[in-house]
Amino acid sequence: MQLVSSQKMFNGWQQRYRHQSEVNQCEMTFSVYVPFRVAQGHKVPVVYCLSGLTCSDENFSTKAGAQQYAAQLGLMLVMPDTSPRGEGVADDAAYDLGQGAGFYVNATAAPWAAHYRMYDYIVSELPALIEAHFQVTKERAIMGHSMGGHGALMIALRNTDRYSSVSAFAPIVNPMDVPWGQKAFAAYLGEDSKAWAQYDACHCVNHATKRIPILIDQGSADDFYPSQLQPEKFVTAAKVAGLPVRYNMRPEYDHSYYFIASFVESHLSFHAEHLGL
Amino acid sequence: MQLVSSQKMFNGWQQRYRHQSEVNQCEMTFSVYVPFRVAQGHKVPVVYCLSGLTCSDENFSTKAGAQQYAAQLGLMLVMPDTSPRGEGVADDAAYDLGQGAGFYVNATAAPWAAHYRMYDYIVSELPALIEAHFQVTKERAIMGHSMGGHGALMIALRNTDRYSSVSAFAPIVNPMDVPWGQKAFAAYLGEDSKAWAQYDACHCVNHATKRIPILIDQGSADDFYPSQLQPEKFVTAAKVAGLPVRYNMRPEYDHSYYFIASFVESHLSFHAEHLGL
Repeated sequence: MQLVSSQKMFNGWQQRYRHQSEVNQCEMTFSVYVPFRVAQGHKVPVVYCLSGLTCSDENFSTKAGAQQYAAQLGLMLVMPDTSPRGEGVADDAAYDLGQGAGFYVNATAAPWAAHYRMYDYIVSELPALIEAHFQVTKERAIMGHSMGGHGALMIALRNTDRYSSVSAFAPIVNPMDVPWGQKAFAAYLGEDSKAWAQYDACHCVNHATKRIPILIDQGSADDFYPSQLQPEKFVTAAKVAGLPVRYNMRPEYDHSYYFIASFVESHLSFHAEHLGL
Repeated sequence: MQLVSSQKMFNGWQQRYRHQSEVNQCEMTFSVYVPFRVAQGHKVPVVYCLSGLTCSDENFSTKAGAQQYAAQLGLMLVMPDTSPRGEGVADDAAYDLGQGAGFYVNATAAPWAAHYRMYDYIVSELPALIEAHFQVTKERAIMGHSMGGHGALMIALRNTDRYSSVSAFAPIVNPMDVPWGQKAFAAYLGEDSKAWAQYDACHCVNHATKRIPILIDQGSADDFYPSQLQPEKFVTAAKVAGLPVRYNMRPEYDHSYYFIASFVESHLSFHAEHLGL
């Protein structure tokens, strides 16, 4: 694991690391925010922050304004990239497929299967790396935006033993049923939609083994609402499955990081509460 | 004045506007943050936020994390561009001259004199526009980063009747004596350095007509400190001139927006205090 940069922020450290990913078979870059509490000798829990289409590890880092709350609450933030990358990695000219658009699945169809294993990367490889190299506990929460909101919900629901809570801003909740998800799943998983449901949060609610707390915020002025984003569908499915969901419709907010910045404090407080901080 | 975008943020509005600038003889774009207090029917004071080399109106908007404090304090933020722009506007391949590097002067030398009148733009044209179109008072403060810190200090000291307070992150304080400033001033103002001092904050301290409150933060791990940035020189000059300066050396912080975000709350609180909020 190679340190790319380290910058002081809110008395802690904003850092980037590069490492060889075994599951993705390429070099991956991620960002972390290490709060001051670590320098004081404490182990801290981790919140994984998954970004949306076109993003790298730097969008959430530079625009969400989350670090000040992580500093106050004593949380480490981990901001992964959204796909494998590099010259040998399959790509597509469109913004919603290929590099920058991994959709947090393990691809099974050519040419994607060789590198696109973001599900295993986020669920297993990256946490193992983080927990081996940083002063963190094994307590985790996960959150995300848009495609990253899909990733966070789907991953948390399939791994309720690994996360204390999950939250999402403007998540894709039913990828099988919207253009972004249908295009990506057909490419990564093949045309047979039977393999798709395991990666669809509206289906995953039925397989949650614990009542994991869920928080969702959606802006009413979001250009992708409701064509790509139908949080209400998820809220209904989660309630039917007996899962606790707090859902906030935010009037006039859009899909941007200005929306995220406006409410990120409430998301980190929510995770801190369920992490027992 | 044409509205380019309007996005809700912290219950107020982050907006971009485009307008024809008479002093710069080109189209200019600026960003504003309008706090909720305006929607409640109040007029609010304005803090002008000047950016550094290579920046547009969007760097401070997206990365500084200032809007939440502007919302809390009831301040409007105005984030101008750092130079005239466009096809007909002189430019240079270097990052530190031409478009994105106006240095807040009125250029007198060819080929710059036709458009580069950022001093007049920031001091007069833009405030007149803001005060005609928004629910603001005529109370103003000004702040900036790096080249924008130079702009803020120099402009405030020359116009103490127009600003209640001034602050800067990692400012260029003595452009006549450092490579960035010497290169820009030689280009914009001509080789004869007699015309330079009027735009050098270390000289401007001697012409301040009021004891304007000044706040400066500098990171000790800033790559440009002290080769381009010598805040201590300014602190000494200001003290000799009888001006009140609060100076904070911030150990281990660098030149980035992560540094700005860490301390922007204290800068806006400082301005709010002197604006009587």
